[in-house]
Formats: sequence, structure tokens, C-alpha cells
Amino acid sequence: MHYRILDPNYEQRVRASFARQAAMALIGAELTGVAPGRCTIELPVRDDLTQQHSFVHGGIVGMIADSAGGYSAYTLMPADASVLSVEYKVNMLAPARGERLIARGEVVKAGRTLSVVRADVSALEGGRETLVAAMQQTLMVMHGMSDERL
Amino acid sequence: MHYRILDPNYEQRVRASFARQAAMALIGAELTGVAPGRCTIELPVRDDLTQQHSFVHGGIVGMIADSAGGYSAYTLMPADASVLSVEYKVNMLAPARGERLIARGEVVKAGRTLSVVRADVSALEGGRETLVAAMQQTLMVMHGMSDERL
Amino acid sequence: MHYRILDPNYEQRVRASFARQAAMALIGAELTGVAPGRCTIELPVRDDLTQQHSFVHGGIVGMIADSAGGYSAYTLMPADASVLSVEYKVNMLAPARGERLIARGEVVKAGRTLSVVRADVSALEGGRETLVAAMQQTLMVMHGMSDERL
Amino acid sequence: MHYRILDPNYEQRVRASFARQAAMALIGAELTGVAPGRCTIELPVRDDLTQQHSFVHGGIVGMIADSAGGYSAYTLMPADASVLSVEYKVNMLAPARGERLIARGEVVKAGRTLSVVRADVSALEGGRETLVAAMQQTLMVMHGMSDERL
Repeated sequence: MHYRILDPNYEQRVRASFARQAAMALIGAELTGVAPGRCTIELPVRDDLTQQHSFVHGGIVGMIADSAGGYSAYTLMPADASVLSVEYKVNMLAPARGERLIARGEVVKAGRTLSVVRADVSALEGGRETLVAAMQQTLMVMHGMSDERL
Repeated sequence: MHYRILDPNYEQRVRASFARQAAMALIGAELTGVAPGRCTIELPVRDDLTQQHSFVHGGIVGMIADSAGGYSAYTLMPADASVLSVEYKVNMLAPARGERLIARGEVVKAGRTLSVVRADVSALEGGRETLVAAMQQTLMVMHGMSDERL
Repeated sequence: MHYRILDPNYEQRVRASFARQAAMALIGAELTGVAPGRCTIELPVRDDLTQQHSFVHGGIVGMIADSAGGYSAYTLMPADASVLSVEYKVNMLAPARGERLIARGEVVKAGRTLSVVRADVSALEGGRETLVAAMQQTLMVMHGMSDERL
Repeated sequence: MHYRILDPNYEQRVRASFARQAAMALIGAELTGVAPGRCTIELPVRDDLTQQHSFVHGGIVGMIADSAGGYSAYTLMPADASVLSVEYKVNMLAPARGERLIARGEVVKAGRTLSVVRADVSALEGGRETLVAAMQQTLMVMHGMSDERL
């Protein structure tokens, strides 16, 4: 898909915003890729991220999908805008286990007020990737509210 | 709504399962209520749970909604079953800030294989509750897979 | 829940808009209730509304839930606004059969730009109501775009 | 994606099931493509399918997305199984207008009990396609319940 870029400094803006997300630091998530309409977040699997069956908690899987989706949309927003997650819906497809989870977001539609994004989360186990979750999300552009000053 | 209870020890079963969720301990979530078809999870707000605007991260809000919903469904499942989150969809309604978040789940339909649950998340700030998120979720009953042995 | 009414003529506005929905006429849906933050749409079951198992098609169930939800939100919007369905998510809970389906929407949050609504769809069969679907939906307020002129 | 086919007669099975959906005939939907894990449904735009703004009703858009998704999953199911829509979530991306809508489903994960599918709906207007909706859906395999006998 071809995307229209409104702010050439989108990568720096996304990286600065991600660095301010304390919750991403708490779980150990890393921002590993930023491109127009796309964002990748990786999460090294740790014991303290699991649910009762020793797989990564579905809520944590949703968390990195939500962030990867939000920042995918944010790459296409103007410099003076902030991004807000309106809603997301995530399907769990397989147990989230292995060495590392990889959430990849991709913008489906970038609108003036609302954007729609899909993200997939894969688990990397012994060099093999398995799709573990599929997300679809709605984001809102908050014009005139730079992410830094909010 | 009237619910049919298949296992009188549902509360003990839910509490034991919650205690095995390392991810809930990581974020500091507490299981504060268990009743047939219902479950309440509370989360004291901490700085390390926030996103870039200093509100609790939407993914964390989704996490406690997902768990509250899952355990609401689990109260109505047979003793030898385990619960699996198939998918959830959460709308963010207001910034999640204050002293404490409260996620309350309630079963809409308990089926033999699938259950559907709704959960609301409120923020408690200065003694006043504000609705911050609304979730709808599908759960799967894993028959013959006791939660402990999985 | 207590709702703030911005346009005292909300019922007339909703009824006029519903009357312009040709798709509702095609399936035979009837607007049977309008109140602040609430709307009820009923659908007499007909053979030409069914899927392969002779139940009402899930898409038709979603259609009346979508409309009931949208008009629930519309009751709380200003006179010069129009309503747009941003997204909806619907769970099918039981086969939709009987004499009549009843979709009841209820606003969860009415915002300046976005509103969130839940709707339940029941089937009336031999005087007994069964819940057949549960929906959660996001709507957008289109300010300055009267429904009539769009 | 590579899909495993359990019933070589999948196309005939899908076509026979679609032909039994009276609701698809009511709105004039046509099954125009069936392949492993994929299904395409087209809908010539008609005045009696519209909402209050003369665009195709979002519920009708959801209907063809739901059917395209369901039959995409059904292509990969065993011969003696039936398909059930558990839930679907659809984002409206642009007004649905033009000569024809095209809903294309694609299986994301085909499981023994549950399948997850995404579908996109485009509008064809003057030879140009515009994406108007994006759907994500959960389907259930009903083993031992041939679609014909249900």
C-alpha cells in the first residue's frame, strides 16, 4: 500500500513517544522497526509475563499489538498531532510461547480523524515463527496536541 | 441474570488460577471479587503502567478486562475444565487515571464450548468512579484440561 | 444511566432518519422504541432473511443491531449532526429463529466526537425471549451535517 | 499462505450452501469466487440497500463480509462439517457506493474447532476500487453436522 507522509520526522516522533511509555519498559518491549504506515515491536518472553498455563498473558499480547498498531498509525499523522487508541479487537490464535514475540502493525486506512490498523503477533521459537494473534484497531488523530506536551 | 453453577468450588478454582498468573503480579493486579458469572479485578495505578500521556496504558486496561472477563466465565465452568480467551474487543472511553482501576466482568452467555462476557473498567479518582473502558469477549471451555495441570 | 439531551426533537429526528433507510424497509424492520440513549428495532422473521440452516442470517442480525445502536447514539446528538457507524462487533449467542427479533441499543458513552453503544438482540418464540446476539459499537458524530441534507 | 484441504469437493459444498442462503438472494449477492481459504462475494448496488445517506447500509456491508468470511473458512472444513459465525467485527472505512461491492475473505488460521478470517470489502465505481470496510471474524466448525441436514 502507498501511504502519504505528513511529517518527515515521523520515525523520531514515534521513537520519542515509545520511550515515554513506561508500561512498555515494564514488560521489556522493544521498538524494532518504524516505516511509513508500519511499526514493529518485539517482546523477549519472560516468566513474569505469563498466565496460568505459562504462556504469555493474552493481555500482554494485546498490549504490544495495541502499541504496534497505534504507532503504525502515528507514522502517518501530522507533526502537531497525538494518537489515541479508540478500540482494538484481538484474536488469540495459538499459545504465545518461545523466545520472543513480534508484533507488526500495518495501516489499513489513514483518515483525517480516524485511522484503522491491523497487527499480527508472531512467536519466535527455535528460529521458527508462529502466528499467535491477529488484531484490528481504530485510532484517533488528536490534532494540535503534540504527543510531548499532553 | 441467573447462572447455573457446575462446580461449587468455583471461587477457590478461580483464586488458585489467578495466583498462577505471573503477569497479574507484575502489574500489581488484585482479585477482589468472585461470584457466579462475575469477577472483579482491581489495579492500583502506578507510574510504570503508563503510556506516553501518563495515563494507564490501554493495553494494561485491556489486560485486566481480559482477565476479569475470563474468570467471570471460569466461575461457571466444570471442575475439570480450563478457560481460554478466544478474542476480546475493548473500547477506551476516557483516560485511565486516578488511584485505582476496577475491572468488572459479567457473563452474557455461558455455553458448553463457548462463553461470551462483557466487562467494564472504571477509574477511581478522589472517591469518584469514571467508566474508562468497555469490553466484549469470547472464551472457550477446554474440557478435561484442569487449569492446574496444563 | 443519566443522559444529557442536546436536541429535544430527538425522537422525530430519529424516526425521520430511520424512514429514509431503504435497507430497513427491504428486510421489514420496524422502529418500535426511541428514548434518550436508547432505541429498539424489531424484525418479523421471514423466510427470505435466512441463512443455510433456516435461521435468520447473522448479517441481518448484525444489521438491526447496528441500526438500533446507531440510533441510540443519535438520540443524544445535536440537531445539526449526523451519525456514522465507525465499527461494530457482534457475537452470535444462539440461533436467531422464532416470530420476531428485537434489537435494543443503549449508549455506554456519548462523547463530543465518538460514542460507544451496546445492543442486545433477542428472539421472540412462542412468547419467550432468548438472547441471540450481543453487540458493541463505535459511532461518530458528524457535526454540521444534518442527516437530511447528507 | 498455504492451506490444508480436507474435502476436495469444497467448492461444490460452498456453492450449495450459499444457494441455500435466502438472505443473500434477497439483497442480490453473488458468489463469484471460491478457492482454498478464500471466497469472494459481489453485490450489485441497489437503491433498496441504502441507509439514510444513500450509501449501502453498513449492516449490508457487514452481511456480505460475514458470508465471504464464513465461506472462506468453510472451504477448509471437512465434508461432514457445518460452519457457524461466532462473532465478527467490521470497520467502515469509506462510504459504500458505486456500481458494485466486492467482499473478499481470507483465512488467517484454520483450527480444529475455531477458525479466524479477515475480509475486505471494496466498492467499484467507474472502474476504480475503493476499500470501504475491513472485517475480522471467528468461525466455529460444527463437526458431524453436514450443512445440508441442519
